[in-house]
Parts: sequence; structure tokens; C-alpha cells
Amino acid sequence: MKAEILSIGTELLLGQITDTNAAWLAEQLPTLGIDLFFISQVGDNRSRLTEVLRTAWNRSDLIICTGGLGPTEDDLTREALSDLLGETMVVQAELEKNLREFFSRRNVRMPERNLKQASLIPSAQAVENPIGTAPGWWIEKEGRVILAMPGVPHEMKNMWQTQAVPRLRNRLPGEVILSKTLKVLGKGESIIEEMVGEMLSSTTPTLATYAKPDGVHLRLTAKAQDELTARGHIFQAELELRALLGTLIYGVDEETVEGVIGEMLQDRGLTLAVMEAGTGGLLAAMLSDAPSSPEFFRGGLVSQQRAMLSQWGIDRELMEMHNIMSREVVEAMATAARQAMGAEAGLAICASAGPDDFEGQTAGHIFMAVDLDGTIKSTDAFYRTKPPEVKRMAVTVALNLLRRALLK
Amino acid sequence: MKAEILSIGTELLLGQITDTNAAWLAEQLPTLGIDLFFISQVGDNRSRLTEVLRTAWNRSDLIICTGGLGPTEDDLTREALSDLLGETMVVQAELEKNLREFFSRRNVRMPERNLKQASLIPSAQAVENPIGTAPGWWIEKEGRVILAMPGVPHEMKNMWQTQAVPRLRNRLPGEVILSKTLKVLGKGESIIEEMVGEMLSSTTPTLATYAKPDGVHLRLTAKAQDELTARGHIFQAELELRALLGTLIYGVDEETVEGVIGEMLQDRGLTLAVMEAGTGGLLAAMLSDAPSSPEFFRGGLVSQQRAMLSQWGIDRELMEMHNIMSREVVEAMATAARQAMGAEAGLAICASAGPDDFEGQTAGHIFMAVDLDGTIKSTDAFYRTKPPEVKRMAVTVALNLLRRALLK
Repeated sequence: MKAEILSIGTELLLGQITDTNAAWLAEQLPTLGIDLFFISQVGDNRSRLTEVLRTAWNRSDLIICTGGLGPTEDDLTREALSDLLGETMVVQAELEKNLREFFSRRNVRMPERNLKQASLIPSAQAVENPIGTAPGWWIEKEGRVILAMPGVPHEMKNMWQTQAVPRLRNRLPGEVILSKTLKVLGKGESIIEEMVGEMLSSTTPTLATYAKPDGVHLRLTAKAQDELTARGHIFQAELELRALLGTLIYGVDEETVEGVIGEMLQDRGLTLAVMEAGTGGLLAAMLSDAPSSPEFFRGGLVSQQRAMLSQWGIDRELMEMHNIMSREVVEAMATAARQAMGAEAGLAICASAGPDDFEGQTAGHIFMAVDLDGTIKSTDAFYRTKPPEVKRMAVTVALNLLRRALLK
Repeated sequence: MKAEILSIGTELLLGQITDTNAAWLAEQLPTLGIDLFFISQVGDNRSRLTEVLRTAWNRSDLIICTGGLGPTEDDLTREALSDLLGETMVVQAELEKNLREFFSRRNVRMPERNLKQASLIPSAQAVENPIGTAPGWWIEKEGRVILAMPGVPHEMKNMWQTQAVPRLRNRLPGEVILSKTLKVLGKGESIIEEMVGEMLSSTTPTLATYAKPDGVHLRLTAKAQDELTARGHIFQAELELRALLGTLIYGVDEETVEGVIGEMLQDRGLTLAVMEAGTGGLLAAMLSDAPSSPEFFRGGLVSQQRAMLSQWGIDRELMEMHNIMSREVVEAMATAARQAMGAEAGLAICASAGPDDFEGQTAGHIFMAVDLDGTIKSTDAFYRTKPPEVKRMAVTVALNLLRRALLK
């Protein structure tokens, strides 16, 4: 099955947004055994969009569109698909009913222009979008499939996973493709690639690495005639990777580092409290995303002002002697967080996130500490990058510090 | 001049990297008055690459390629351009000399396969690449221009700015394109579009709307013979939009809602403290991103546990009577945040972010309150979407609540 992705929206052609939808979809397709040959971005222009669709129609079996399904005059994907196939759009009573209910549940009057989101052409089926107003279109015609999804990333991803993947699986040959992702924290992509060595050129299963915000992902993909064989290939390769990488691996597939930490804490009946200066709440936000967060996460104290830190139990003299951005202060913060909120584990960050130096520390210098029942570990690191990136790295390194303390 | 971008590399089709080169170039082109109509990503395959180049050749005046100029067998941009134009590549003595010097300066033997980087076809000129081994190609033929640049972002950007822009300016008419974005919070995209009405079909300047995480963006773009005229068109349209939308508009271009709030607070010499239950620190994180955050932002208290909220000053009986997820409790939290951290303004969120109901409130129900020097305003809202989205909406609505309180 030869696939092609079309990302639709003038904002892509003005560089106002980067096409992350296409990159995300491109990563999903190999797990279905679908080969992707082309990606295109095109603006909100009916004739150019139709032209690009026609090129795709002539060279691909599966065309995946994102964007252009909104209610406005700029949203022209439905119109272009109608032009391509020479079919006429008709409002569907059932879709209209769903759409009106969507608005009435929110106590909002439905603007009449939204009505076109309830339209279909004869060869299209509606694809459910439980979290937005625009249903997708699934078109099967002349041996080809066109899937049109919204451009809003979370709506697109939801529709892809819950609606598109099952439909696509039904059309694929009897081959089974399985994949599994191992997630690693603590070393960079090139070091990990050296550590796994020749496994990178193996074909059963294949191994690909991806540098992601939550570490390096190693994705194994096995193709076989039956599921058991595919599963066997992956199992064997996972054993080899685990032998090579050990506890650098923190989780698999959908597991997150915060989720893994949450499980480790709960298994041992521990709770966690955090204090952060310079990351502004990102550490607390990440921990709150763990599914079991209400059980293990006591809370977070966020400030980079000395007066507040002092109020929360950090000794003023210590701050004067060592500065806030120091191993000494971050260790005191981990302990203070733990004690102030009655938790067994305390985690703290002091980050000079930039763009300017903060409290005498070069922008990019970060300090992290964990206090686990009185046993303290701390570390520091330096990232010469932009503030949002520095904050994200600080949170990731801090979570990994806690994970490693809990492993002992 | 109708332009098109081709990004070349199989890694783009596997989702291993996102095409940031195309987004960067797309942002540069409007400043030259060049219209970009298409972007495509294609893999390292000679026939598909030639096919995509042919499509571009038939519909565009300027084709900008990135990638595929390296020395390996996978680097096929030169070969595909030769195929497209029916010309033969020949190694150029002068380019070969430069290339050998590049390697000898680094005391590295030049691999013989690099020699193809010293080749040209008759209609191509070499474009200097002072920071890499691959010169670009500049082709002028049959009224069209093809520019091939390396895929390594910093080499590409350097070549674009120092070599390509001057050559392009020589070929362009004296047209200027300017754009300005107004940002709106408080109403959805379709309602805003109804409010601005026929301005959406205006051509001088054009108006386009975008639904973004930080509200609706309205982008005005004007094309004119000189900068003053373009600026005048945008100024006039901005006045009309401000008359229609009033204080729904919170900022322009690079301004953020947290930055605007920071400025309002600083203008009035006020500081801010927050307390959040259910958004896990996201509100604090957003406020910490404001450039002036160290001056106005005292800090944040983050927890959804009753014991912690009680410790931070929320009356236990109030929580028992109304539940945490209520207008009454969120108002008490705004006041408690303000008082606990000695700030003039307090902002609070209680969000039942889901996936499960929390503290008796349906997942998706959110409560926000602001206490400005003792004057309290609160509101609630409901979003039937995923937890990360509910949290993001809660933070956005809360920031807008504070902004509106500060406007009074």
C-alpha cells in the first residue's frame, strides 16, 4: 500500500506553524506496514488543493489529508475532494443532529456556517470525531482510499488511533507487523547508537532510534506471517537491548517517566512533594500527568524569589552563602519540600533557564536534588540552548534522578 | 514569482525528523514578496525525486530544494536535476580544488565519493558553501530558477542568507509584503469570523484566522509597491478590527497573554501569586514564561489534596460543604494565594481535568477565580476533551479572567 500525506493550510506555507502532523503520521505508518512515498503541504486554495489531490490520486493507494475541515471559508478540503471525484456534497441529517448536540451541550449557539461540517459526498463515510466538531471523511473509490482528518493535532491523533487504524488494518494483507518502543534516559542518541551497535542494521526486527523530549526511543519493528513469530522476533531483540542498556531503559511504548515513577512510589507506599525555582511549575505539571498522581503526588511549591523560598523553609544564610542556584540550596529545597508537605520523597530543581543569567548562574546551568527518606542525591548539568528547552531538560534530568534513587 | 519547496530525505518520510527547513524558508519568502504555493517532502529515490521535480517545474517559477547534496549513494538531488533537465554532470576543476582544500585544511583525506560534490550540469552555477563540503546549485533555464541547498540546517540558512537572497532580489520586482497578527481571547474562531464579517474576503490587506492554543489569531497581509503603502493598508485594517473586537484583542504578533499580563501588573506595581488544583503547575509554568516574571510573579502552590489546600489556608468546612471543585473553593484559593505570598493579585484554578471525575465533579468541568486587592471574580467552564487539553483551556481561561480584571 503506497501512501502519501497532504497537510493542508496556508499557515504551513507562511512558516507560521511547522508540520508536526505529517511527521507524527510518518512515524505511525511503518507500524502498519504502509510505505510512505510523499508528503506535501498546500495552502487553503481550492484549485491548488484539487490539483495536489489529483497528483496524489494518480500515484498513491492511500492519501491521508489533515486540515481544512473547519467551518470557515478557508476550510476547503471537502470542496476539493468533491471537485476531484466529481461528486456533490449533501448535508446529512444524522451528522447535523450530532453537530447541533455538540454545541448545545456547551450551551453555545451553532454558527450556521458550521453546517458544512455535517456534509458528505456519496463515496465518503463520516469518521467519528468525539472531541471536535469536524467529522473526518473516509473515501473508498477505484481501489484507492482517501482519509481526511482535522488539522488540530489532538483531534487528528485521536481520530487516527481510534478510527483510522482499525479501518486500515482491515484492508491490509495477512502480514502481521508488530512494533515495540523501548525508552531510554541518561545518555544521548549517538552514545545509545554506539552501545546498540550492529543491531541498527538488523532486519528482523528492524531497529530505529528517535531523539525525543522524554529521552531516546528505540523502536523495534517485526514483520511476519503470524503474530507469534513477529512477537518472538521482538522479544528476542528486546532481551538483547536490555542486556546492552540495563536500567537506562525506563519504560516501553506508552509508558512515561512520570508514570513509571508513580508506580515505583506506589509500590513502596511513598508520596512525593516538589519545590522548583526556575522551571516555574513544569516539574509539578509533569508529575500531575501521571495516571496515579492523585495517590502519590502531594503537591508543589513554585517560586524563584528568595522571600518565598525562605518562607517555605530554606535558610536565608544558606541562600546568601551559596546563592539559590547551587547544589547546597537545591538539596535544602528537596528536604524542605518533603518536610513541608509530609511526604517521604522530595524532589527539587533550581534552574538558571535564561535568556539572562539568574542569581549569578550562567543561563543554562541547572541543579537537581532528591531527598528520599533523608538520603540526599544531587546533580547539576549545563544546556546551552533556549529557556523552554533548558526547563524541559531540567525536569527530565530531575525525574531521572528520582527514578534512579528509587531503583536502589 | 510562484515558489515551491522540496525537502529531500527518506528520514522525513519515516518521521525521524520534522521538516523545520521548509518552515524556516516559508517564513523567509514573504519578506521577499515571493508567494509560496507548495511544499513537498520526498525520499532518497532517484525516480520519485525526478517525478516530484518535474511536477514542480511545470507549476512553479522558483523551486527551492534542500537535502540530497551529500557525498553518499543516497544523495541524489544532483542526479535527479540532471535527469529532469536532460543534462550531464561534469566534475569542475575549480570546485574539485576547493573541495580538496576543504579536506586538507582539516587534515583529512578526501573520500573519492565526495568528488561528485564538485560536479555541475551546464545550466547550473555553483553556490558557495563556506561552512560545508557541498556547494549549492543555482539553475536558470526557460524562465525558471532552481536552487538546491544542503539539508543541514545551519549550512542551508547560511547559504540562503548570504548567497540566495542577493541573487533572488536581483530578479524580483519592487513589491513589498507585510503582515501583522492580532490575537484574541474570549470567543471561538467561528464567532470571531462572524464578528469580522466581510473583512475576511478583503484583498488589501487579506485577513486569515487561525485557532491556536493561545486564542484566535487574525493575520493581516498586505502587498504593495512600497513599504509605506503596505503599512498604511495594515494600519487601516487593524483600526477596523479593533473597533469590531475591542478588548477581546489582547496582543499583536509575538506578544503572549502571559507577557501582556506581566506588563499590566508591572505598570500598576502589582505582584501575582497563584494556587492550582488539577492543572498541576501549568498556570505557574505559563506565568514563569513571561519575560518580566521574576519581577511580578511571587510563586505558585500546586496540589489537589485537601490536606495541602487546608495547610495553605483553605477552610476545611468550606471544602466539605462545597467540594474542592466549586466556585466557593476556587475563590477562597485565589484569596489564600494572594495572602500567603503577600501579593496584590491572586489567581486560582480548580480543574476536574479527567479522565475520571474528580471530587464529585464531571471530568472537564473547570473553575477559575481572581482576587485583585480583595475584589473577587470567578467563572466556570466545561470542556469535553482530553486531560492535557482541559488543563490548557483552564489556564487560558484563567489568564484571560485576570487580564479582564486588570482592564477595569
